[in-house]
Amino acid sequence: MKKVAVIGTGVIGNGWITRFLANGCEVVAHDPAPGAKERTIQAIENAWESVEQLGLKEGASKDSLTFVDSIEEAVKDADLIQESVPERYELKHGVLKEIDRFAHSNTIIGSSTSGIKPTDLQIGLNHPERLVVAHPFNPVYLLPLVEIVGGEATTKEITNRASVYYESLQMKPMVIEKEIEGFVADRLMEALWREALHLVNDGIATTEEVDKAITYGAGLRWAQMGPFMTFHLAGGNAGMRHMLEQFGPALKLPWTKLEAPELTDELKERVIQGCETHANDRSVEELEKKRNEFLVKLIDLVEDYWP
Amino acid sequence: MKKVAVIGTGVIGNGWITRFLANGCEVVAHDPAPGAKERTIQAIENAWESVEQLGLKEGASKDSLTFVDSIEEAVKDADLIQESVPERYELKHGVLKEIDRFAHSNTIIGSSTSGIKPTDLQIGLNHPERLVVAHPFNPVYLLPLVEIVGGEATTKEITNRASVYYESLQMKPMVIEKEIEGFVADRLMEALWREALHLVNDGIATTEEVDKAITYGAGLRWAQMGPFMTFHLAGGNAGMRHMLEQFGPALKLPWTKLEAPELTDELKERVIQGCETHANDRSVEELEKKRNEFLVKLIDLVEDYWP
Repeated sequence: MKKVAVIGTGVIGNGWITRFLANGCEVVAHDPAPGAKERTIQAIENAWESVEQLGLKEGASKDSLTFVDSIEEAVKDADLIQESVPERYELKHGVLKEIDRFAHSNTIIGSSTSGIKPTDLQIGLNHPERLVVAHPFNPVYLLPLVEIVGGEATTKEITNRASVYYESLQMKPMVIEKEIEGFVADRLMEALWREALHLVNDGIATTEEVDKAITYGAGLRWAQMGPFMTFHLAGGNAGMRHMLEQFGPALKLPWTKLEAPELTDELKERVIQGCETHANDRSVEELEKKRNEFLVKLIDLVEDYWP
Repeated sequence: MKKVAVIGTGVIGNGWITRFLANGCEVVAHDPAPGAKERTIQAIENAWESVEQLGLKEGASKDSLTFVDSIEEAVKDADLIQESVPERYELKHGVLKEIDRFAHSNTIIGSSTSGIKPTDLQIGLNHPERLVVAHPFNPVYLLPLVEIVGGEATTKEITNRASVYYESLQMKPMVIEKEIEGFVADRLMEALWREALHLVNDGIATTEEVDKAITYGAGLRWAQMGPFMTFHLAGGNAGMRHMLEQFGPALKLPWTKLEAPELTDELKERVIQGCETHANDRSVEELEKKRNEFLVKLIDLVEDYWP
């Protein structure tokens, strides 16, 4: 992959451009908004020091960027196309149809959509099979996660190829097999976000207090582990098995506006086995030691950089 | 504050003991379980290197710990009492009544409960006014957050005094004025947790994938900022105002099992004003610069410590 087209240059599109440039790609961008090019150049300028610190690939240059006046011109020779126009179905779908019309038939089109199902985006395309969702996280040039979701027309070969592409951009692709609105990461984030809005709406906490409740608590742990391994470590030596016994009943309590699933034996086993497999023979004590070393450094880091 | 009583020595109680010792307190502990003392000594041993790295207070010593055989003996001369018995109302309430009976009438009792309302815990106490929830986060000896929640009988003077106590333990106390089940931090965590269980239950993602979706994405940002400031920075120069325009409509979409509140003009303004006040005249660009410096270091740190 050498030449990448980026369609739509808002915060996300510009984040992609920076990542592509930092990884030695040649980028052709298109956005019809007045002043788009200048804003993109400024955005790259602001981000460049950070990507340099993380490490540039050979041949990486801020100058390998061209702005063109049409989608056709942007996509016609591209090896990968990244669509990042605003999150409105009609707009996105129209742009994707135009991309599809002018791109090589086997060029992968990645859509940055946060939650629209790829099957819905594939409707009416000439080559729907090469469209995947490739959903990144802000700031795109730093955060490694990208969710790869195929639609009904997408083949396994395409999601695999897409996964390899994005991995070559120093990302952590996560292929999601079952297509649902919001995919995986945004479902988790959106649950937290909606609960946070309820807390503010009900006058329980200010936005600053909600942020404080995360940054000085769970947020520190989630940087290293997600919710499952975090709870595995909170369960003492018996890990998640003990945790579910201890806090399973809380799933029935009004601790959030979100109804929990029934904690069946099957779900319990799935969660416990998942954590134990992930722990991979490392005892809770061993994992705790690693976590503690990490947290000590992270707490120092947070002190230096926030508020 | 010099002498602290800790009642209940599971993962949380032992975390408290370590924090108290690291901050130069003398600790008297009680737990009727066989082998409790040995487990506590081991837990302190495992954690001590980390608290040393974060910095011990003058006079801090692992040896300033005594185990005693009764609640009476533990609490009678204490300046602060921390209750951390298992999360079952009847058990906690019984223990708190016994603590209340033997403690000095003006000694603050902090309950580590994750979600039981302090008003419910105060029922039948001789001096209910000095009972507050002081809810910590695992690992208690490292994570700074502690939620302070008073019940109906609690005076403002007591929550203030409690707040000063916990702050002197190098913690970040957050006083929550409105008493609700789950308080603030656990409501947020529980929303994420329940959504995560739904994803696993519905076969959308494995526990490992859920964890990956957090650790390589939002988790990195949440270590430094909570959900509100994170979105403020994702909104470009117009910050949260733009973000709500862009992603407000997504609140109606099935991106989580949790119903969102109505995004009224009042709620919008509350959220926007909250973020702008917190940003405190720092532009989004300025905050982004700080965030990027932080993320570069954090990403390096995560590489070193996980998996």
